[in-house]
Amino acid sequence: MSPAEARGNIENFTGVAQIPLGIAGPLYIDGEHARGEFLIPLATTEGSLVASYSRGMKVVNLAGGVRTTVSGDSMQRAPVFIFDSAREAREFVAWIGTRLEEIRAVSEATSHVARLAHIEPFLSNKFAFLRFNFTTGDAAGQNMVGKATYAAYQWILANNRTIRRAYLESNFATDKKPSHVNILHPRGKRVTAEATIPHDVLHHQLRVEPDQLAYHWGVANVGALLSGANNNGLHSANAITALFIATGQDVANVAEGAAATTFVEVTHDGALYFSITIPSLIVATHGGGTHLATQQECLRMLGCTGHGSVDRLAEIVAGTVLAGELSLAAAISSLEWVSAHEQLGRNR
Amino acid sequence: MSPAEARGNIENFTGVAQIPLGIAGPLYIDGEHARGEFLIPLATTEGSLVASYSRGMKVVNLAGGVRTTVSGDSMQRAPVFIFDSAREAREFVAWIGTRLEEIRAVSEATSHVARLAHIEPFLSNKFAFLRFNFTTGDAAGQNMVGKATYAAYQWILANNRTIRRAYLESNFATDKKPSHVNILHPRGKRVTAEATIPHDVLHHQLRVEPDQLAYHWGVANVGALLSGANNNGLHSANAITALFIATGQDVANVAEGAAATTFVEVTHDGALYFSITIPSLIVATHGGGTHLATQQECLRMLGCTGHGSVDRLAEIVAGTVLAGELSLAAAISSLEWVSAHEQLGRNR
Amino acid sequence: MSPAEARGNIENFTGVAQIPLGIAGPLYIDGEHARGEFLIPLATTEGSLVASYSRGMKVVNLAGGVRTTVSGDSMQRAPVFIFDSAREAREFVAWIGTRLEEIRAVSEATSHVARLAHIEPFLSNKFAFLRFNFTTGDAAGQNMVGKATYAAYQWILANNRTIRRAYLESNFATDKKPSHVNILHPRGKRVTAEATIPHDVLHHQLRVEPDQLAYHWGVANVGALLSGANNNGLHSANAITALFIATGQDVANVAEGAAATTFVEVTHDGALYFSITIPSLIVATHGGGTHLATQQECLRMLGCTGHGSVDRLAEIVAGTVLAGELSLAAAISSLEWVSAHEQLGRNR
Amino acid sequence: MSPAEARGNIENFTGVAQIPLGIAGPLYIDGEHARGEFLIPLATTEGSLVASYSRGMKVVNLAGGVRTTVSGDSMQRAPVFIFDSAREAREFVAWIGTRLEEIRAVSEATSHVARLAHIEPFLSNKFAFLRFNFTTGDAAGQNMVGKATYAAYQWILANNRTIRRAYLESNFATDKKPSHVNILHPRGKRVTAEATIPHDVLHHQLRVEPDQLAYHWGVANVGALLSGANNNGLHSANAITALFIATGQDVANVAEGAAATTFVEVTHDGALYFSITIPSLIVATHGGGTHLATQQECLRMLGCTGHGSVDRLAEIVAGTVLAGELSLAAAISSLEWVSAHEQLGRNR
Repeated sequence: MSPAEARGNIENFTGVAQIPLGIAGPLYIDGEHARGEFLIPLATTEGSLVASYSRGMKVVNLAGGVRTTVSGDSMQRAPVFIFDSAREAREFVAWIGTRLEEIRAVSEATSHVARLAHIEPFLSNKFAFLRFNFTTGDAAGQNMVGKATYAAYQWILANNRTIRRAYLESNFATDKKPSHVNILHPRGKRVTAEATIPHDVLHHQLRVEPDQLAYHWGVANVGALLSGANNNGLHSANAITALFIATGQDVANVAEGAAATTFVEVTHDGALYFSITIPSLIVATHGGGTHLATQQECLRMLGCTGHGSVDRLAEIVAGTVLAGELSLAAAISSLEWVSAHEQLGRNR
Repeated sequence: MSPAEARGNIENFTGVAQIPLGIAGPLYIDGEHARGEFLIPLATTEGSLVASYSRGMKVVNLAGGVRTTVSGDSMQRAPVFIFDSAREAREFVAWIGTRLEEIRAVSEATSHVARLAHIEPFLSNKFAFLRFNFTTGDAAGQNMVGKATYAAYQWILANNRTIRRAYLESNFATDKKPSHVNILHPRGKRVTAEATIPHDVLHHQLRVEPDQLAYHWGVANVGALLSGANNNGLHSANAITALFIATGQDVANVAEGAAATTFVEVTHDGALYFSITIPSLIVATHGGGTHLATQQECLRMLGCTGHGSVDRLAEIVAGTVLAGELSLAAAISSLEWVSAHEQLGRNR
Repeated sequence: MSPAEARGNIENFTGVAQIPLGIAGPLYIDGEHARGEFLIPLATTEGSLVASYSRGMKVVNLAGGVRTTVSGDSMQRAPVFIFDSAREAREFVAWIGTRLEEIRAVSEATSHVARLAHIEPFLSNKFAFLRFNFTTGDAAGQNMVGKATYAAYQWILANNRTIRRAYLESNFATDKKPSHVNILHPRGKRVTAEATIPHDVLHHQLRVEPDQLAYHWGVANVGALLSGANNNGLHSANAITALFIATGQDVANVAEGAAATTFVEVTHDGALYFSITIPSLIVATHGGGTHLATQQECLRMLGCTGHGSVDRLAEIVAGTVLAGELSLAAAISSLEWVSAHEQLGRNR
Repeated sequence: MSPAEARGNIENFTGVAQIPLGIAGPLYIDGEHARGEFLIPLATTEGSLVASYSRGMKVVNLAGGVRTTVSGDSMQRAPVFIFDSAREAREFVAWIGTRLEEIRAVSEATSHVARLAHIEPFLSNKFAFLRFNFTTGDAAGQNMVGKATYAAYQWILANNRTIRRAYLESNFATDKKPSHVNILHPRGKRVTAEATIPHDVLHHQLRVEPDQLAYHWGVANVGALLSGANNNGLHSANAITALFIATGQDVANVAEGAAATTFVEVTHDGALYFSITIPSLIVATHGGGTHLATQQECLRMLGCTGHGSVDRLAEIVAGTVLAGELSLAAAISSLEWVSAHEQLGRNR
């Protein structure tokens, strides 16, 4: 990498960190944006990770692939406005509702891409937090949304005399932090992956039964609720991190991205339905580190370059996460220990 | 990187992902393990990140450096044992208490390094979750702890007839997931960084006043509590991710590591006390990706190679995080908007 | 109480539980709905509770009273609809958006009072959770909203062929459970109380300084974030419970109501600004236990009977909570221990 | 109630609040402390609540009763000590470990009942939070633990010169607030109730199938995780509140008590295993409001008077909660809507 290539991505450039890249898959994806077989580049130093994901992908493929769906898309910045009292904060929110078109015009003037979807207000004490929600095309969009919101912030300050103090950000976005607001409301893409694995495929490939995985899922929910984990999945962070490094994403966004909700059930015909929703997956196919050489190569390999490719990447990440969840869940359940007493009682 | 070098770190090796590496700092660290000036290698594609951390470091240095303290060290695996009813689960936990030495012997026999510190039981429904806590030397230790706990798990299953089912893991460790148990009890190192910035340094370097930063900290606490963020910091994930990529860490551990608690106050003489505690920072100077060429180079640059160097790395990460929190907090507060009404009132 | 009087409130009526009732206050409230002096009936068996609240009220009165503001009003029921896959769930949400008027008509036909404000969808896995938000006049409204939502639920099931399963409720409302969704979005009233206590009033009445309370507030934020408390207040549950018992509320709603967010600062002229927001306070002046004899008497004493009185009750509860927070905060801070070293440094 | 009777429970006594009392049950409890049939007094104004609990109890009785188990007992106060830096805080915790016997002697000297079980330290920033854990006999114990901890606090301040500031409490206990620390570690009693309902009992009595309840439980876990509810149960607060009012408990403790974890499974022979653990149930049979006339009567009716009766009360509360969870879960599931498509697929 030349200093010129890295310009804009780093300061005090001195070289590169080299992370080994392995190829998992192929993975058959039945998405709306990603369709067909994909070889998945994973950059990691954790031995067995690529093998484990590949194992899951093989099973998913034998089951007809993973179905993926993007159901939300938003990027936020959330300034806080402080007033003399709660009453002025409440009136301010009402006032914002009457000036939306002006605010939209001001903020959208800062970018050819960012579009203001809506502003969600949250009132507490004498504060009004305004969560600006934008769409940002193929970019992750944190910077363009920061700029667009700053323009709105300036306009608001110039046009409202009741504000006493204000900050452009105050832990309500919440950038690079796991948070419940980002589990409820998407930051980045909200994307789901689903697969239905026939009993025999699961039995022969992973040596576990659908009801074993379903039982462990129930136990793992209790574990997650007690431990205060922000999700009931197993290790979504592994796939997300490895794909993020490989494809030039802002890897620190793993902090939000790792909140993945799983649901597992045994279907009427004895198969395993397995799904995972990542509520706030921040991905880009434009901007940031996506233009760098090895990163571009990985994106190209995934067909994720050019206009309108970002949802494809989101679907690929979700599908990969699902394959890894399935693989690890099966590994845990294949070590399941069941007493003779319990097994005899099982009467299958 | 040759396939031979990457062996053990990756499967289906096809090349490398190259992440630009910039040098921030130097940062003066007054730690117990890290002492002196450090140049900090950050691998990232986010423009301005290195510059922002360097800006914070300059201020920290002018204030005499950052003081760092490691106060906890532990790595976990948490099997779950399932019984006929809650009563047997409770008796099981009592029984475990009587067999600790045997369990310790069995688990420690699997490694020259892992030492069992204690087992913490959590009872719910008919489940006993046992959270095994080990120290693991300079390694992150997830694998060795997995192996050591598995030996204990097998021994327990062989020696207790009341268990009906068991799993080696069930969302109580909680690996690669943000969780409250890992905020309360360390997973990896618990490490704190602190700095006291004189008023004039802050004013001249960052164009903000200590009481501005303190005020924003208060507002940001309300933001964090309302948004359900798992921490009241700003962007610890940025430093942790960039240092983790540079030094061969398991980057997916950012999911836990990003839970950083800040505390800010104005001291008697008008300076800014700023501190951050990372409750669960998983770092290694041995094993995983630490032996790879560019990663070793970065570790060497930090003096973090060889026996007993892992706490030094933990301190360096914490110090770097603090510099970045300070820099971003100042950037937000320098955009603070204060009404004339409020400013005139200020007059202190 | 006669069996006839209790009819509709209880089954297998056998008598009454008698809870001692004490009068705290008066409290001067400067609300939009509650204005003037109020004697506050508290039903409790915890000795010193009434005295502590009265102590806080005295201080608040000397400071000109407590300012109260209602900023949100909503009651929910949240059915879940289950589909073949995430894609149908997403299409279903879009379809709901096109049929809102019919859904509104069907649900509002069940009540003269309940009005559908909006339906908020949350998508995960193959589920669509629809959070129905109603206003319910002076009633708490859980029952009428249950009925109105059930009508909508039936209509939806009759008109959409893609649903595979559905439940009227699935932990998304979330009735009688503390939850983050109810901190972000009001369930019941969102109400704030604020007071600004001059330095001398605080000093003479409670023997503490504004900056002592502000400092403790900062420490208590760190405590709340680490302990995973759902709020940074001290004991809002005490006032809410005692007022709820006295006035015939559904006391189990304390589970949600106790999530109270405080904010504290020292003002330019050295006074203490203290505020508390209760995000989800479920109160009623009509229905439930409000018509019973002692309960009606308490409501009458508060001027909270008749049409349109429920916001007054919400403001009274919030004002009372604030008085108690202030009183306990001062009690803790007056036990504050400060080393000579620290005190000398203080230089006041 | 005479003013004399209420003395110690209330100030400014003016009368009583009368809450209707209904009798649910009987409930057959197979506990270690509560054994046999119990009539359950519930004080509430919510119509149908007593009937719903009775319905659940009838089913539980037909299934052989509810099995109850107390597995934890502890009451806390958690002072915070503040130091020059994190390093002194860490040394302080080590020092506390060397002075435990003196601290125990000092704190236990304040009471004939309170016994110090252990002190758990939590370090963050420059703070050491010490969570004192006591057993308190038949009392809830908040006051005696406050007194005992205050004695220890004073002793510590007198014997350690490194402390700069300290507060007796700082949101780490966490009294009357839902918190994760109190889900992990018991505050009050940790108590579990379990029942196994044969298929035919469930089918005939509640018109639902075990697998319907199990399926809804899975969906409700996803709901709880997304909504950020602190538990996956349905309405434990209802039983706890009604029993607390009836038996003279500190009703504000519902805030902690409502965090109830359920686990549901279909057993090998097609029955429904249903269990609930309340991690932090604060109950008393001595002190507080327990001596008042109607309250004593209720406690006597439950056999919960006299030395050593508090665990019996804990078991009764847990058993009652379970009956109500079962009843409501069945009510929701009996409204379950299943498409013809899904039903045909079911092939039962």
